[in-house]
Amino acid sequence: MTDLAQAILAGNRRAIARVLTQLENTPDDAQATLAALFPHTGKAHIIGITGSPGSGKSTLVSALAKHIRAGGQTVAILAVDPTSPYTGGAILGDRVRMGALTGDSGVFIRSMAARGTLGGLARAAREAVRVLDAAGFEMILIETVGAGQSEVEIASTAHTVIVVEAPGMGDGVQAIKAGILEIADLLVVNKADHPHAIQTVRALEMMLELGHPTRPQTVNHHGQAMTIAPNVTETPLWIPPVLQTIATDGTGIEALLTHIRAHYAHLHDQGELQARVQGALQQEFTDWLREAVFEQFLRELPTTEYASLVQDIQSQQISPRQAAQLAVQLWWNSL
Amino acid sequence: MTDLAQAILAGNRRAIARVLTQLENTPDDAQATLAALFPHTGKAHIIGITGSPGSGKSTLVSALAKHIRAGGQTVAILAVDPTSPYTGGAILGDRVRMGALTGDSGVFIRSMAARGTLGGLARAAREAVRVLDAAGFEMILIETVGAGQSEVEIASTAHTVIVVEAPGMGDGVQAIKAGILEIADLLVVNKADHPHAIQTVRALEMMLELGHPTRPQTVNHHGQAMTIAPNVTETPLWIPPVLQTIATDGTGIEALLTHIRAHYAHLHDQGELQARVQGALQQEFTDWLREAVFEQFLRELPTTEYASLVQDIQSQQISPRQAAQLAVQLWWNSL
Repeated sequence: MTDLAQAILAGNRRAIARVLTQLENTPDDAQATLAALFPHTGKAHIIGITGSPGSGKSTLVSALAKHIRAGGQTVAILAVDPTSPYTGGAILGDRVRMGALTGDSGVFIRSMAARGTLGGLARAAREAVRVLDAAGFEMILIETVGAGQSEVEIASTAHTVIVVEAPGMGDGVQAIKAGILEIADLLVVNKADHPHAIQTVRALEMMLELGHPTRPQTVNHHGQAMTIAPNVTETPLWIPPVLQTIATDGTGIEALLTHIRAHYAHLHDQGELQARVQGALQQEFTDWLREAVFEQFLRELPTTEYASLVQDIQSQQISPRQAAQLAVQLWWNSL
Repeated sequence: MTDLAQAILAGNRRAIARVLTQLENTPDDAQATLAALFPHTGKAHIIGITGSPGSGKSTLVSALAKHIRAGGQTVAILAVDPTSPYTGGAILGDRVRMGALTGDSGVFIRSMAARGTLGGLARAAREAVRVLDAAGFEMILIETVGAGQSEVEIASTAHTVIVVEAPGMGDGVQAIKAGILEIADLLVVNKADHPHAIQTVRALEMMLELGHPTRPQTVNHHGQAMTIAPNVTETPLWIPPVLQTIATDGTGIEALLTHIRAHYAHLHDQGELQARVQGALQQEFTDWLREAVFEQFLRELPTTEYASLVQDIQSQQISPRQAAQLAVQLWWNSL
C-alpha cells in the first residue's frame, strides 16, 4: 500500500485533498492509491442532491451537514458542477458558505468541476467518493447543479437521491423533468415559507403519481404527515415522499434526515443496497474494459493506415462508422 | 444504394421520417442507408439553438424558420431533448406550435428524445442532421433544451451555435454558464420588450468580455448597432454579438438571420468551416473505432473468465479498473 493510501485510511486531510486534486488534473497518478483504497470502501451512506439553480440546494446541503454533525456522524460534501469547466470560484464559495462548519475535523468540503468530458467528471466524482468513504466519512453528500442526464449519471453513484425544487420559479417544475424525477428517492420543496410552496408540492405529487401506482406521502415543514400513503403489504415499495424545508432557518431538516436514514434502512432491508452497488460495479468494469481494449488497439494500429482512412472520410468516400469497422477488421485479420 | 437512401435523396418525406424513426429506435437498421447518404452530405448550414427553459427558444426557432422560408430557402427543425426520455408530447407539441409552417414541403419538423445514453442521443441527432442534409434542406435548426454539457455535445454538430436567454428569469444568466457561453457564436436576448432586457444584455456582454479580448458588438432589437467592436485587423476573430428579439411578433428575427448568414460566411472565408467539419469527422471516427474494437473483444472474451473477475470485484478484492486491465492483458496474451 502507498503512503498516500495509508494516510487517507488514517483520515489525513492533506492526503485526501491531494488525491482529489490528482483526480481532477492527473487522474492516472491516483491509480495506485485508488486500487489500494478500494477494499476499504463501501461503508459510507452516499447521498446525491440535485435540483434547479436557485432552489437553495447549497444552503440545504450545508444545513443537512450541520444536522448530521449534531447527531455525531462525520460528513463529507462533494459539490460537482457539470455545467462549468471552472472550479476556482466554487472552492472559494464553499469555504465562505460553510461558515460554522469550517474547522470541524468531522467535515470535509470539496468542489469538482468539468475539465474534460462529462463521463470524465462522473468518473472523477465516483473515485472522489471512494476516497472519502475509505477516509472514514460516514455520510457523503454529492451536490450537483443543473438538470439533465449529467445528474442522472453522477447520481448513479449515490444510494439515496434527493431532488430539490423551490416554489415560484416559473417553469421550475417543468425543469425537473421525468428523467430526474425517476431517479428521486426523496423530493424536497425548499423555501417552503413561499406563498406558492403548496402548489409546487401538489405539482410534484401529480408528477410522481404518474410514475407510481400509489399515492406519495406528504409531510409539511413541521414534519407532520398530511397524506398517508395507502398500506402496501405484498412488496414494500419505496414511495418517494415530498418534503418541505426552509434551509435558511433549518426548518424541516431534521425530518429530511430521518427520511434519508429511513431510505437507507429500506434499501438495506430489501437487499436493494447490495444490488445497486453490485450493478454499478459491473457497469464500471465494462466501461474500463472498453477503455483498456481501445488503448491496446491504439498501440497496435499502424499510423499510415489510420491516416489513409481519415483521408477517405474527409473526402466523403466512406463514413466514419464504415471506416471504423474496416479498420478493426484489418487489424483483427492481421493478428 | 438502398431504395430508402434514393427516396431520401429525392426528398421523399415519408422516407426521411422512416429513417429518423429507425435512428431513435433501431439505429442499426439505418446503417446501410446512412452509409449511402454520407457522400451526399455537407451542403446544409447547420445551426444549433440552445438556452434555458422559458427563454422562448421554441417560438424563436419557429419565427426563424418562417423568415428562412420567406427568403426562399428550405429549412428543417430537429428538436432534441436530452432531459427527457419521452418524445410523444413533444411531437404533438411541434405540430401545434408550427402552425403556419405545416403543409409547406420546404419545411420539415421532428423531435428526438433520449432513449438510451446521452452519447446515444447526440449520435442519433448527428445522423438525423445528415439525413436532412442529404434530403436537400438548406438550413437545419437543431433546438436543444436545458443547459449543460449535453448541449455542448449536441451543438458540436452545428456550424453556428445560438444561445438564447430571456430577461428576468432570476438567475437565468447564471444558468447559462461559461461552458455554454464558450460555444456561442451568437447570443440572443429574447422577450426584449421586457423591462429588464437591457440588464440581461449587459450581463451577457460582461460575461463575454471575460472570455474575449475585444468588446462585443451590441445590436438592439431594431437592428441598430449600439456599441461597435474595435477594429481587429490582423486576424479577423468572430466576436459573438448580443442580439435582441421578440420572437412572438417577429421583431429582430431578420437581423438574427443576417448575423447567422454572416457567421457562416465568416467560417467559410477563414477556412474554419472545413476545419470544424474535419475535426468533428475525425472525432466521430475515433468514437466508432472504440465501439468496434470493444465489440470485437466481447466476441472473444471467455464468459467464465469474465464472471470470475466480476466475482473478485464484488468481493472487493480487486477494483473494476484493475480487473479491466487484467482482462485485457489475459486476452492479449492469448491471441
